[in-house]
Amino acid sequence: MQIAIIGLGKMGGNMVRRLLRGGHQVVAYDRDTAAVDRLASEGATGAKSLEDLVAKLNAPRAVWVMVPSGAPTEKTIEDVAKLLSPNDIVIDGGNSNFHDSVRRANALADKKLRFLDSGTSGGVWGLENGYCLMVGGDPTAYQHVEPALITLAPKDGVAYFGKAGAGHFAKMVHNGIEYAMMQAYAEGFELLRASEFGYNLADLSNVWNQGSVVRSWLLELAASAFKKDPDLTGLKAYVEDSGEGRWTVNEAVARAVPVPTIAASLFARFASRQDESFALRVLAALRNEFGGHAVKKA
Amino acid sequence: MQIAIIGLGKMGGNMVRRLLRGGHQVVAYDRDTAAVDRLASEGATGAKSLEDLVAKLNAPRAVWVMVPSGAPTEKTIEDVAKLLSPNDIVIDGGNSNFHDSVRRANALADKKLRFLDSGTSGGVWGLENGYCLMVGGDPTAYQHVEPALITLAPKDGVAYFGKAGAGHFAKMVHNGIEYAMMQAYAEGFELLRASEFGYNLADLSNVWNQGSVVRSWLLELAASAFKKDPDLTGLKAYVEDSGEGRWTVNEAVARAVPVPTIAASLFARFASRQDESFALRVLAALRNEFGGHAVKKA
Amino acid sequence: MQIAIIGLGKMGGNMVRRLLRGGHQVVAYDRDTAAVDRLASEGATGAKSLEDLVAKLNAPRAVWVMVPSGAPTEKTIEDVAKLLSPNDIVIDGGNSNFHDSVRRANALADKKLRFLDSGTSGGVWGLENGYCLMVGGDPTAYQHVEPALITLAPKDGVAYFGKAGAGHFAKMVHNGIEYAMMQAYAEGFELLRASEFGYNLADLSNVWNQGSVVRSWLLELAASAFKKDPDLTGLKAYVEDSGEGRWTVNEAVARAVPVPTIAASLFARFASRQDESFALRVLAALRNEFGGHAVKKA
Amino acid sequence: MQIAIIGLGKMGGNMVRRLLRGGHQVVAYDRDTAAVDRLASEGATGAKSLEDLVAKLNAPRAVWVMVPSGAPTEKTIEDVAKLLSPNDIVIDGGNSNFHDSVRRANALADKKLRFLDSGTSGGVWGLENGYCLMVGGDPTAYQHVEPALITLAPKDGVAYFGKAGAGHFAKMVHNGIEYAMMQAYAEGFELLRASEFGYNLADLSNVWNQGSVVRSWLLELAASAFKKDPDLTGLKAYVEDSGEGRWTVNEAVARAVPVPTIAASLFARFASRQDESFALRVLAALRNEFGGHAVKKA
Repeated sequence: MQIAIIGLGKMGGNMVRRLLRGGHQVVAYDRDTAAVDRLASEGATGAKSLEDLVAKLNAPRAVWVMVPSGAPTEKTIEDVAKLLSPNDIVIDGGNSNFHDSVRRANALADKKLRFLDSGTSGGVWGLENGYCLMVGGDPTAYQHVEPALITLAPKDGVAYFGKAGAGHFAKMVHNGIEYAMMQAYAEGFELLRASEFGYNLADLSNVWNQGSVVRSWLLELAASAFKKDPDLTGLKAYVEDSGEGRWTVNEAVARAVPVPTIAASLFARFASRQDESFALRVLAALRNEFGGHAVKKA
Repeated sequence: MQIAIIGLGKMGGNMVRRLLRGGHQVVAYDRDTAAVDRLASEGATGAKSLEDLVAKLNAPRAVWVMVPSGAPTEKTIEDVAKLLSPNDIVIDGGNSNFHDSVRRANALADKKLRFLDSGTSGGVWGLENGYCLMVGGDPTAYQHVEPALITLAPKDGVAYFGKAGAGHFAKMVHNGIEYAMMQAYAEGFELLRASEFGYNLADLSNVWNQGSVVRSWLLELAASAFKKDPDLTGLKAYVEDSGEGRWTVNEAVARAVPVPTIAASLFARFASRQDESFALRVLAALRNEFGGHAVKKA
Repeated sequence: MQIAIIGLGKMGGNMVRRLLRGGHQVVAYDRDTAAVDRLASEGATGAKSLEDLVAKLNAPRAVWVMVPSGAPTEKTIEDVAKLLSPNDIVIDGGNSNFHDSVRRANALADKKLRFLDSGTSGGVWGLENGYCLMVGGDPTAYQHVEPALITLAPKDGVAYFGKAGAGHFAKMVHNGIEYAMMQAYAEGFELLRASEFGYNLADLSNVWNQGSVVRSWLLELAASAFKKDPDLTGLKAYVEDSGEGRWTVNEAVARAVPVPTIAASLFARFASRQDESFALRVLAALRNEFGGHAVKKA
Repeated sequence: MQIAIIGLGKMGGNMVRRLLRGGHQVVAYDRDTAAVDRLASEGATGAKSLEDLVAKLNAPRAVWVMVPSGAPTEKTIEDVAKLLSPNDIVIDGGNSNFHDSVRRANALADKKLRFLDSGTSGGVWGLENGYCLMVGGDPTAYQHVEPALITLAPKDGVAYFGKAGAGHFAKMVHNGIEYAMMQAYAEGFELLRASEFGYNLADLSNVWNQGSVVRSWLLELAASAFKKDPDLTGLKAYVEDSGEGRWTVNEAVARAVPVPTIAASLFARFASRQDESFALRVLAALRNEFGGHAVKKA
């Protein structure tokens, strides 16, 4: 089928490639003309502008937006929506907050445009393995673009989950779970390393990946990381968070769902980025006040 | 090779079967003679007593103990050790605390017996998939029994990790990680279910298992459980813990390793088994005291 | 000085009384005319309507709004603002979200009205002990109403903390801390009760309140509760949360501040209100899937 | 009454002073003879050795041991027990683990010696305010030394709570609560500081201490600390833990009591002392593996 991709970064570019390999016709656009040229040379139809992109598509047009969430996604959808015609389809494949996706679906519906929100997981491995896609929004739009989605995903790696927002809500929770799983492994590996047994963590991860209850893809990645750098000496203990973990906690709080491990893993990341935490200095100050306990002077 | 298995329950019985399929000669013993007879009919050499078991083995004897941890393991190892000869091998394949394994290794060494502690993961799936084995203890003993271990494990699913205790310490941490991973998924599924999107959790688990970052064997089991009972209406919110999670927290505390998600998942299980938690009643009482807030009367 | 109070419930009614005792002239209004009559009989000037209330005040008018947060506060401030004149003062003494207070301050400023947000703590004990008041908003308005605030508060129990929102933000954090302190005591008391020592918790709380590091007003309330009902047998393990705890976690997440104990105490309350938690049933289902572990059937 | 104090450090020295002020006769001993001389000059009877100390006491002798917990307490009690006579009393006023106190009580009972374990709280403020004392052990011994305990404690600040161990178990839980309360305040103050309101935390603490729900002695100490150094710039974010917090978590785990806030506060202290946490580096490594996310290179 024919589909457009806006945003040719780490994720979008590889999606174009995977779609091309699947025999689809892809119209590709990015503000970075070099990225467009590169993919055009690989078989995509390059677009010089959103206008050009829309002009190169047959109705009903299907436009996959794969730009950073927040303001870039907001502006891209707003801009392309002005150029589209009733019945055309906008798919947000980025990491948008599901509240925004619900709002955008409604705004686009006012213009008779159809919207899909696709939670997309797979990272840099998607080109090779396929992207896991959780999709919400207009069911007729889903049917229309399903051939492309099936190409993007691994076998059985895509499904429609309900009204607009269902895709990005599922992706949000996916990432919340991901944070806590990563933290679970991280705690375990630190404890192993703190033991008297001098474990080879790459070997242990490899063994665990064969038949144990904790085997997983993340554990395969851990094995790979430990193989390259057994003590992870090349890395700082500094961990970003990209938004979905925060949203997961916020939505859990709004729905009165206890999420102790997801919240704890988010807080561990927050703490990793603090230089001389104020809270910890309050603790030191209080210990000094009541017990005369020694403190480390700054 | 020739090996004895003491304890023919859910785990031990299937281990005998897997060893037999691998062409090993297995001497099998359990206090339950019916279990012995059953496995004898499947090709094992049945033993009537520990004495009989030891008599049926060639030196150096290899005896795999697969009975419940704690007192049963303690007594079994003590009893069989009295019957063995220098250079014989005792393997504890159960879920013993690694401190006990270190102690037992030393006690057996005093009698010139060799000891291995094997952390064993795989549950009821081990017969089919193989048992993941993390082994510590005497390296010459490991070499001797390796052919049997290779049969018990899936490909690459067994390795030697160091001195006595290394196997059970690794298994302890494995289970701590398992607790937190399970809790991570559980929190995520509860949040999905608390949403307005009416997810089919079996479908979502299946999709996540194709290419997503959170794919794992536990998630495959979740998909299986949701397929059988989408709302898990057949189950009570009551969750046992079997010891390793507690030990993981204790060892982390002893080594000053922060384990917030492992501890939180353990506490969630504790709370699941409480009827009218006293702590929560203290909270209700305090709210009533300072704010005159309504409380639910028992 | 002269001040009006709108909302004569548990908090507002006692505030009128405390102001009257302090020699202030109080115009009191509530939709419940019986509440108005009661306070009129105690010396307040009763108002029949917001119009009547405004008519009975001298400019610049000072109106303290003490109604439930959310919609009731929104409507009351909106309604009374229409009746006020430039330079008049609206004080929100309720538990509003500070974002709303910032918004209301701006909306009122457009009408040349002055706004104060007063975080108010003290519960049912405020009449006797005074209300702790943390105030934000227009500094000239603060100066105008300070005599009334000083009467409402215990000695040194009121201060101005900055622009609009500062009062309710401080109150929000106060309640977040309160949740975690309560949970800290609750965990401790449960552990004491789980011991082999059969503690008299009222006696222990009383002793702790004399010279120990954990002495506090909440601990005095705990002593009082244990004295009345040593095992708290009259209470259900069911604990409401009133919003500020949730906001505290949300604001911490927004500002990347780790709040593990505040979040944990909020989650404990959420869990207290769950009947057969879905997350816990997921855990039970997974244990059954991988290990064949027994589950409790519903 | 007559009582001996062994250990004249920060705590023991001031206890001697408080007892002397109360009119008691105190025999004081420390390995540091300067400490003995100082207290002798203030009215105590100095002892040159344990033998000398025992010789200077009338039967039944009462000996308060106030040395660091662990090995020093073990050795001191062992040494002095050899010199005492049946019916004499040993009081351990330090921060011993209650399991040790139970064991020591039994060992001393074999020699017909009476034992008391006194959990002691109050820190450097004890001299002025009195020491909160939670006592377990032999009830007849408690009655004998009660006059001294009443002098040491503030009014109503001492009580007998049951058999040996009850005192130190209560102190252990006290400290667990203390950890979580401190952490609760610390989180709150960090969130206040992360706000847009520029709070004066000394002022806010002072206001909160007048009539608010979170008022406490710890909050008075916080106010004092913030007054001296509003941003706590003189302190490092490094916080020791002294054992009781760990024991509290261990005992909670042993008794299946959920202690999420106490554990979280302990883990925050552990993390404060880590330089480049391995767990956090595992997180960074995993993010890099699956998403190609940027990491900070060491």
